[in-house]
Amino acid sequence: MKRSMLAAALAILAGGAANAQSSVTMFGLVDVGYAHLSGRNNGSLSILGPDGYQSSRLGFRGVEDLGGGLRASFWLEAALTPDDGQGGATNSNNQPSGAGAATAGRQGLTFNRRSTVSIAGSWGEVRLGRDYVPGFWNLSAFNPFGTNGVGSSGHLFYPVQGAARVTNVRASNSFGYILPGNLNGFYGQAMYALGENASNAGATEDDGDVLGFRLGWASGKFDAAFGVTRTEIAALGDLRQTNFGASYDFGMAKPMVLINENRTGATRTRTWLIGATVPAFGIGMFRAAYSRVNTSAVANDADQWALGYVHNLSKRTAVYANWSRVSNKAGGTNYHNGRATTAPGGSSTGYELGLRHTF
Amino acid sequence: MKRSMLAAALAILAGGAANAQSSVTMFGLVDVGYAHLSGRNNGSLSILGPDGYQSSRLGFRGVEDLGGGLRASFWLEAALTPDDGQGGATNSNNQPSGAGAATAGRQGLTFNRRSTVSIAGSWGEVRLGRDYVPGFWNLSAFNPFGTNGVGSSGHLFYPVQGAARVTNVRASNSFGYILPGNLNGFYGQAMYALGENASNAGATEDDGDVLGFRLGWASGKFDAAFGVTRTEIAALGDLRQTNFGASYDFGMAKPMVLINENRTGATRTRTWLIGATVPAFGIGMFRAAYSRVNTSAVANDADQWALGYVHNLSKRTAVYANWSRVSNKAGGTNYHNGRATTAPGGSSTGYELGLRHTF
Amino acid sequence: MKRSMLAAALAILAGGAANAQSSVTMFGLVDVGYAHLSGRNNGSLSILGPDGYQSSRLGFRGVEDLGGGLRASFWLEAALTPDDGQGGATNSNNQPSGAGAATAGRQGLTFNRRSTVSIAGSWGEVRLGRDYVPGFWNLSAFNPFGTNGVGSSGHLFYPVQGAARVTNVRASNSFGYILPGNLNGFYGQAMYALGENASNAGATEDDGDVLGFRLGWASGKFDAAFGVTRTEIAALGDLRQTNFGASYDFGMAKPMVLINENRTGATRTRTWLIGATVPAFGIGMFRAAYSRVNTSAVANDADQWALGYVHNLSKRTAVYANWSRVSNKAGGTNYHNGRATTAPGGSSTGYELGLRHTF
Repeated sequence: MKRSMLAAALAILAGGAANAQSSVTMFGLVDVGYAHLSGRNNGSLSILGPDGYQSSRLGFRGVEDLGGGLRASFWLEAALTPDDGQGGATNSNNQPSGAGAATAGRQGLTFNRRSTVSIAGSWGEVRLGRDYVPGFWNLSAFNPFGTNGVGSSGHLFYPVQGAARVTNVRASNSFGYILPGNLNGFYGQAMYALGENASNAGATEDDGDVLGFRLGWASGKFDAAFGVTRTEIAALGDLRQTNFGASYDFGMAKPMVLINENRTGATRTRTWLIGATVPAFGIGMFRAAYSRVNTSAVANDADQWALGYVHNLSKRTAVYANWSRVSNKAGGTNYHNGRATTAPGGSSTGYELGLRHTF
Repeated sequence: MKRSMLAAALAILAGGAANAQSSVTMFGLVDVGYAHLSGRNNGSLSILGPDGYQSSRLGFRGVEDLGGGLRASFWLEAALTPDDGQGGATNSNNQPSGAGAATAGRQGLTFNRRSTVSIAGSWGEVRLGRDYVPGFWNLSAFNPFGTNGVGSSGHLFYPVQGAARVTNVRASNSFGYILPGNLNGFYGQAMYALGENASNAGATEDDGDVLGFRLGWASGKFDAAFGVTRTEIAALGDLRQTNFGASYDFGMAKPMVLINENRTGATRTRTWLIGATVPAFGIGMFRAAYSRVNTSAVANDADQWALGYVHNLSKRTAVYANWSRVSNKAGGTNYHNGRATTAPGGSSTGYELGLRHTF
Repeated sequence: MKRSMLAAALAILAGGAANAQSSVTMFGLVDVGYAHLSGRNNGSLSILGPDGYQSSRLGFRGVEDLGGGLRASFWLEAALTPDDGQGGATNSNNQPSGAGAATAGRQGLTFNRRSTVSIAGSWGEVRLGRDYVPGFWNLSAFNPFGTNGVGSSGHLFYPVQGAARVTNVRASNSFGYILPGNLNGFYGQAMYALGENASNAGATEDDGDVLGFRLGWASGKFDAAFGVTRTEIAALGDLRQTNFGASYDFGMAKPMVLINENRTGATRTRTWLIGATVPAFGIGMFRAAYSRVNTSAVANDADQWALGYVHNLSKRTAVYANWSRVSNKAGGTNYHNGRATTAPGGSSTGYELGLRHTF
């Protein structure tokens, strides 16, 4: 009913303009920065790229009070790359077939980040649509660099096989349940998502079905959470992604730890991180992390050092700098900083300077 | 001028925020539901799909008072599929060549539902852009299930040949005229749309040209309308879609009838429906319909039974359930519920449970 | 902080609706018109097309006061074609490879017109993202028809080779600097944009790098500006686009002149225009221009006559009419009005009637 309340309020103010507003909240974030990426014995790359600190986005959301403690809400959030103005692709069926090849320069806005409708009450929230898989949140919350920029080691935490990466962050066709906020610090959520294959599709009938949950406890300075995601993929053996993260805010510093295992059949990838954020100058924050990955599918390991600083010009606007170095420990792996081109077994270094603005 | 009025009003309230608002109204609808579709002797399909009750959308519109009884307005409305966050495609020339093949997961937002600019006065409204063809409105208004969800028999009313379906709902490049609202219950509109082919294109010069009108009369409980759409298609013989619908609101029930003929050359498809909506519990509505199609192009007929219930949690939020069964009467036709896979001559059953929220 | 101020103001008015507004300004323009284009000895074409007077768009922007004279801002602006509801493509790397082939009817919204984040102060503005190249502004500001509609001779000013046209109007991955507004009438801006090729890409390493600036002086009735854009294109020799424009507003008429040279290697295209806008009836404006192009790459010249009238129904809404004739002077060139089909050396005529509405 907010629409009519707001419309009525504005009508009093603006005469005939009663239909000029609704209950929609627009929101977004634009993050653009210069990045330099160099691979050992390979070329370097200078780019003006998006999302060095946080992910650029444009969204529309709203909440309606249904009375009796019930609320209905919607959330439509699109990724965008402000360096060139494109949107981002989504995936329609949680399988590789649900996302076609890109056409350069032509990706329009989709609500790939989140596209949901919900009913919520004192018992929690039921959410339908495209949303983050529960276990992803640990990868973001317990990494000082989240999953953005050259400092992020998110690429060490993602599954190494393409088909297993589809539902690494989000799933379409999902039913979600989120616990209410008054459980003495416990928080959590569960998701079931459909691959939408016909029942006579044979072995791949359940491909793209996703089941996941996350359970955590936060109390003042301490925060810890456990998450699991299982995606059915007949060709690889199902993906099981399991992770745990914890942080403690000492005030002068907030150290954190994150461990994750991705398993598909006999292929296991284990990754861990230790890091910290350190407030500085009242309006800044240093960030540091060391991450290491051990992959059973290929010959050897890789690790990553990362350092960064965020300087807040206001609550909405910040400038930032990041540096990191990714080292592959033997010939079998080729982890690297973003678009840096490296040979397997090589290393890469990246730094970036950027500006992030929210609205 | 609403922009400046509203800006002024808000400036008084918010100090420097005078530029924070304009005269645009954002609006939309998010409808997501679980559907189960099964074809006889074929597999079944479980999906989380959009639009089981009404079509999901995001739009921007506004009206400007020009003085002297004149108004200018615009309307930009995009389809979206909230189960996966994609937009919907449009068609640029009212011909099959105006809409390319889909790339999975990458369809960005287009204003495919409506994209118009208008001048209106006491004499009616002139509208330019992409809009619904006039005759479509009968298919929606006089079907208890509109054209959405497993209960809808819209698929029995659409032309069976692909090229003839392009302008079945909307046309691009259109000039529209809509009668004013004060004609003693008479309402109506006319449209002419261009296929935009060069004059030396030969036989297909006029392909995609659309001419249509609708005329109705509504007075209290009674409503009836007649519509015609002609789309030029050299290869098939022009499509002539003719329909008539009527409803009477008895209060305890609102029965309705709809008949439609699609003709392309010697191919005729005739469809009729009888149905009703029945208010219940003060905040709910039952829906029921029986539809039957007779196609001259193939061997035989099909029919559809549909039942549904809509429960309104508020004016903006509703939960709903639909059930329907489509039966092909002989081997020649293969009408079916949405994405259900059936063999020609078979039948399919579908049901769905969903949540619709408007803003 | 406008978001919270506005939210607070609205909260007072609307009770629980405090989260219903943010500091985003939505804005846009919808321009649709009927155009008839005919090529000598070729067919004619009737279309309902966009942008006969100004470019259709939908945008989101906002400014944040950071204190101390600093401001942060963002600007996201998408092209749209309201005749069919599509968006427009962008280019990701300022090279032909950065924009793929179009899929009919499926181009979603991208922020191809502008997609930037900025920090500004008394020293000017630093802007990051996708933006207009500085030299483009002269082509628009000193042409009575800008770069829109059948009256525009913009097509005579653009480079003739495809690869050279990519950055003719805008560039992605750009760093911009814009002079502040208090320099006694002097205005100007500079841009450097990245093609984002790897340093080991060989001869094409710098392809798509763009360097440009514009410097002008406006004082009351007089306005003049000079612009240069250089885009690196190894295959053609770099594109150097140099232009100068000036206008003087006599009140009863505003004559203007514009000259431009595009050079790629040995290929030079020189174009000039003289034109004027003439206010009429208090609410209208006549427009007239003569343009001539001399291309070294092909045999001969072309010229264009254009006449137009804009009638403002309000500050936001106008109807307009344009007419123009493009004549190729010998067999080597094939300039023509928009989608008119002509043979090399022929001529084409176009006229259009349209409606433009801003919001």
